[in-house]
Amino acid sequence: MTYSLYYSPGAASMAVHWMLIEMAIPFEAQLIDIDAGAQRTDEYRRLNPSGRVPTLIVDGVARGESASLLMLLAERHPAAALAPAPGSSDRAEWLELMIYLANTLLPAMRDWFYAGVDGDLAGADAIRALARKRIEEAWNRLDKHLADGRVYFVGGMLGTVDFLAVMLMRWSRNMARPATTWQHLLPYIERLRGLPSFIEVNAREGLTDWSNSAHSTNGNV
Amino acid sequence: MTYSLYYSPGAASMAVHWMLIEMAIPFEAQLIDIDAGAQRTDEYRRLNPSGRVPTLIVDGVARGESASLLMLLAERHPAAALAPAPGSSDRAEWLELMIYLANTLLPAMRDWFYAGVDGDLAGADAIRALARKRIEEAWNRLDKHLADGRVYFVGGMLGTVDFLAVMLMRWSRNMARPATTWQHLLPYIERLRGLPSFIEVNAREGLTDWSNSAHSTNGNV
Ligand SMILES: N[C@@H](CCC(=O)N[C@@H](CS)C(=O)NCC(=O)O)C(=O)O
Ligand SMILES: N[C@@H](CCC(=O)N[C@@H](CS)C(=O)NCC(=O)O)C(=O)O
Repeated sequence: MTYSLYYSPGAASMAVHWMLIEMAIPFEAQLIDIDAGAQRTDEYRRLNPSGRVPTLIVDGVARGESASLLMLLAERHPAAALAPAPGSSDRAEWLELMIYLANTLLPAMRDWFYAGVDGDLAGADAIRALARKRIEEAWNRLDKHLADGRVYFVGGMLGTVDFLAVMLMRWSRNMARPATTWQHLLPYIERLRGLPSFIEVNAREGLTDWSNSAHSTNGNV
Repeated sequence: MTYSLYYSPGAASMAVHWMLIEMAIPFEAQLIDIDAGAQRTDEYRRLNPSGRVPTLIVDGVARGESASLLMLLAERHPAAALAPAPGSSDRAEWLELMIYLANTLLPAMRDWFYAGVDGDLAGADAIRALARKRIEEAWNRLDKHLADGRVYFVGGMLGTVDFLAVMLMRWSRNMARPATTWQHLLPYIERLRGLPSFIEVNAREGLTDWSNSAHSTNGNV
């Protein structure tokens, strides 16, 4: 049951990497530096035909899709309690939020960062404008969700929605309106960034620019 | 345990409607005609703040997101066997395909149909061009998945991936390259369209334009 994670620092693999560390289970981590184009080698494409990270080797089979991997890991390791148990009252909310993040924020972020790569350069501005609108709408919705002061997204416990949401919030750090500028997202982010497992995944991936201790003049730390 | 489904003919609610019929469990269906703007009334927005279909009332609580509702229903009704059981060997593939459809095809279809509504009219062509590219890439990938002649997407059994995939394939019927023009998608579609539950959901939603018996000159039936 040893897992191998193919990751690139700060990429969509980060949520899975964070969860593996939080669960304290054995796994290997393989660096695929996407800035250096390592995701486009024939060798990596045999594992992940679309040339994306993450890939997680599960029972010897290469699997993709960060949201799916988080859900699979939660299900395979119920003792870690990183998702509400099947049949529990929080289950519907958990599923809805996982799918909402997977089909709203994840694709809008893809558009934001890859508009000119996935599509024509000429159309990139229009695609990025719509992506930005959708991303900010999503922060509004998630901010409302946290407005009751809850510590984690679902069921009062750290879980897969938090790993995915915080990773996505991190990706907004250089946008005009980063997630940290929303009233209820900021304290949530600061709390989650303080978790030992989050500090550890940043250290292992060599990331320093979005921690509680990083200094910044615009509040976007 | 009675469910209420808010649906619009042929919309994202169709997969859930189809699944409820296939499971032969009691539910109520409420028409929200999106062409008439019924999704924008205050009354409906109290159930679904983003004004989308489907909404499913589950244990008295309004829930959204078609992919999430399919997964929830499968989990609440394990005897129907419309998803591989947790812990079974097909589970990882099932989760990966559900998330893939939810975060690739569903948002690309949203872009295809709503580019000028969700975003600026001026940018709509660029957004639709990228959406079309992504949709055709997804048909390529799904076509490969079915190339081994399998009858259903996962585990040799009808399930949630099929409900979602066939609904999405139907949405391509008026595109330049509908899903029916892919070699392995066509026989799959024809097989699934022949299921009594698919014929029944079409009848209940008043849909006649994408059945095996409909006549058409372009093969896109
Ligand atoms: N839907 C995928 C998206 C993964 C994704 O887009 N990853 C990006 C990094 S954040 C990537 O691998 N980019 C490399 C490329 O597209 O060349 C998931 O959630 O796992
Ligand atoms: N992610 C949602 C998308 C639902 C969606 O976009 N539904 C469309 C119909 S296919 C809708 O309700 N449109 C009405 C509108 O946006 O005004 C899901 O999968 O349930």
